[in-house]
Amino acid sequence: MNKIKAQTLKGFRDFLPGDARKRQYVINILKQVFESFGFEPLETPALEYEEVLLGKYGDEGDRLMYRFTDNGDRKVALRYDQTVPLARVIAEYGNKLPMPFKRYQIQPVWRAENTQKGRYREFLQCDIDTVGTSSPLSDGEIIACTIKSLEKLGFKDFKVLINDRKNLFTFKNDEEPNLESGLKIIRAVDKLKKIGRENVIQEIINIGLPMEKANEILDVIERKKPTENIEKIFFYLENLGVPKEKIKFSPTLARGLDYYTGMIFEIEIEGYKSGSAAGGGRFDKLIGMFAGYDIPAVGVAYGFDRIIEAMDQLDLFPKDLAITKVLVTIFSKELLQKSIEISSKLRSKNIATELWLDLETKLDKQLKYADQKGIPFVVIIGPEEASQNKVTIKDLKSQTQETLTLDEAVSKLSF
Amino acid sequence: MNKIKAQTLKGFRDFLPGDARKRQYVINILKQVFESFGFEPLETPALEYEEVLLGKYGDEGDRLMYRFTDNGDRKVALRYDQTVPLARVIAEYGNKLPMPFKRYQIQPVWRAENTQKGRYREFLQCDIDTVGTSSPLSDGEIIACTIKSLEKLGFKDFKVLINDRKNLFTFKNDEEPNLESGLKIIRAVDKLKKIGRENVIQEIINIGLPMEKANEILDVIERKKPTENIEKIFFYLENLGVPKEKIKFSPTLARGLDYYTGMIFEIEIEGYKSGSAAGGGRFDKLIGMFAGYDIPAVGVAYGFDRIIEAMDQLDLFPKDLAITKVLVTIFSKELLQKSIEISSKLRSKNIATELWLDLETKLDKQLKYADQKGIPFVVIIGPEEASQNKVTIKDLKSQTQETLTLDEAVSKLSF
Repeated sequence: MNKIKAQTLKGFRDFLPGDARKRQYVINILKQVFESFGFEPLETPALEYEEVLLGKYGDEGDRLMYRFTDNGDRKVALRYDQTVPLARVIAEYGNKLPMPFKRYQIQPVWRAENTQKGRYREFLQCDIDTVGTSSPLSDGEIIACTIKSLEKLGFKDFKVLINDRKNLFTFKNDEEPNLESGLKIIRAVDKLKKIGRENVIQEIINIGLPMEKANEILDVIERKKPTENIEKIFFYLENLGVPKEKIKFSPTLARGLDYYTGMIFEIEIEGYKSGSAAGGGRFDKLIGMFAGYDIPAVGVAYGFDRIIEAMDQLDLFPKDLAITKVLVTIFSKELLQKSIEISSKLRSKNIATELWLDLETKLDKQLKYADQKGIPFVVIIGPEEASQNKVTIKDLKSQTQETLTLDEAVSKLSF
Repeated sequence: MNKIKAQTLKGFRDFLPGDARKRQYVINILKQVFESFGFEPLETPALEYEEVLLGKYGDEGDRLMYRFTDNGDRKVALRYDQTVPLARVIAEYGNKLPMPFKRYQIQPVWRAENTQKGRYREFLQCDIDTVGTSSPLSDGEIIACTIKSLEKLGFKDFKVLINDRKNLFTFKNDEEPNLESGLKIIRAVDKLKKIGRENVIQEIINIGLPMEKANEILDVIERKKPTENIEKIFFYLENLGVPKEKIKFSPTLARGLDYYTGMIFEIEIEGYKSGSAAGGGRFDKLIGMFAGYDIPAVGVAYGFDRIIEAMDQLDLFPKDLAITKVLVTIFSKELLQKSIEISSKLRSKNIATELWLDLETKLDKQLKYADQKGIPFVVIIGPEEASQNKVTIKDLKSQTQETLTLDEAVSKLSF
């Protein structure tokens, strides 16, 4: 056989146990919080008919989508986000689903992004959405749930920036721009933090407005007050127990995506500069695309990789994500049976126990292995321990050890 | 916009909340058991270079693989199993990994199967493998871990059939068939249970052996005794606390895949007829394919969909997989604030609480919604309850209700 290079595609990643554990830790906490608000899991296929996905994400989406013709000559595409599949599900199973339909979805998506920008071509999306109600209480709930989930992950200093898309569309009664140039202005304003005021003005000028008008537009936007809708959401957030200082009305918050129709929000984490950890809003015109009529919806998408990165930077992961508590070593072939039995007994006491598997490995190497895997304790059963019906437990961190009965060992390891 | 049909591809499935919950339940238990034996999570990309996957699964594999050329003109393929990616990982990160490397992997794979046979084109694979040791203790551990996981899922009556591939290769010292015809015979014997003795004999004749010889071969195989290797594994299984009656030496067990080199096993669930729930064995010639030298390995693959199906048939899923404990209804616009606050307080007591989101829905409809979602309790706060600072809790199953203080409600819902 020719030797083939063992490599992954650019923009695709392996997650070795250490990283995979971090991902699972975050996913588990997010799921737990989502469920505590009544959101339910949904899974959709990785592949869909191309026509289901195509044309929904604009030109860039169509360009970045992984598309191909399958063995049955069907045009198919890999999942590009989880919102269009949600729209399909709503149309396909409509009356089988409870309404409002509150679902969470945590699956990978694929985009042929330019990887030089530090972007990935396969990444986990993590969304919650409430479909079928336009109640601002559902907007408030999405925000409250997002805040709760970040708190549960250990984030302390973060802010929710909130705005209403309607604030960005109504400039002056007599000179209201049409939807298209309105969206262009929104996309320009969206860059305010990144590129600064002057460059935003320039972008608005490029859309075709005179400089004076461009300045006026930005002035007007900056001086906007919360809409009645936003006021209601603030009130609900207060009722939901969200501390006021966590929330900030931000009239220049725009969000890049075209499809938002009402409240929009973003999470800014203090001390983490690589972008918002989560963002979302109301989109009442999208979910009905297959059903053929408007279906209101509000939701949030988490920046999963950013959350992992921010937690790493802020040191929010528990020190000990490895679950195995103890490695039972094998002292010698003759004492093998003893080690096997002890491993099984510890496991029966709900202690996650790994058993060394080779019969003639030096103890040294076994200890090194435990250390490499982050297993905090090792059990050694030598001839002395065996004759006394005891085990020696070594704490790899403190480098101390004690010889105990099995019962004592169990209680030492059960904490 | 043209109305596009909301449909999934043949062989691809949506998992709505009820089914998604069952899958999560099984995955969580499997992970927990795998971790309790020291197996660690690994994730690999959905897409790989075609050359990494191609030619590893035989002609059928190459035909069923989803392959295409990506936007960057790279030939790529979708994950077809998790063993070849594991071999790539071992070659790519070799000395960064603890050895033996014990990993579990639970990810979807894609195969353009004939869906008429009830097969899926996207399905979850769930594997554990121990790489880097040829110790029969590692064979025993894989089997013990599989048994434990099935027990934790609630299966009671199941058997592990065990054989040694070597038993199937050594027919008669003087007339030993070569590897290729040996594998053909194995594939014929593998069908014994499905197609019966006579048809197996016919298949062996078709390979090119005279009828007498074919009969003799099957006779010899049927009368084989456990090898020394299998005897050792039995001994370890006993030490690991596995009840003897769970295990059965089965000399005609063959397993379809070519790559096994030693112990092979399959799980048969009593009362479930659609195939084995899990199967695996030792494969010492496969994992080194990218590294360029033999690396011993042993593992098991679960039939995830079959396990779900068997658990459904045997009624092994807990009655109440829905996590939400209570729906807090909204009695009227005026009492909205009360409901929001109560929902938030219940949630802060770790009670998974859903809040109704619309302000003017009849109570009836709210109760129906709770019922549809399988939420066992609803909380009602009407004018009377509000004035007494109490809540009414309705048990939807027993159709009884009582009016309680918030503290009493919390303790009623916290069980």
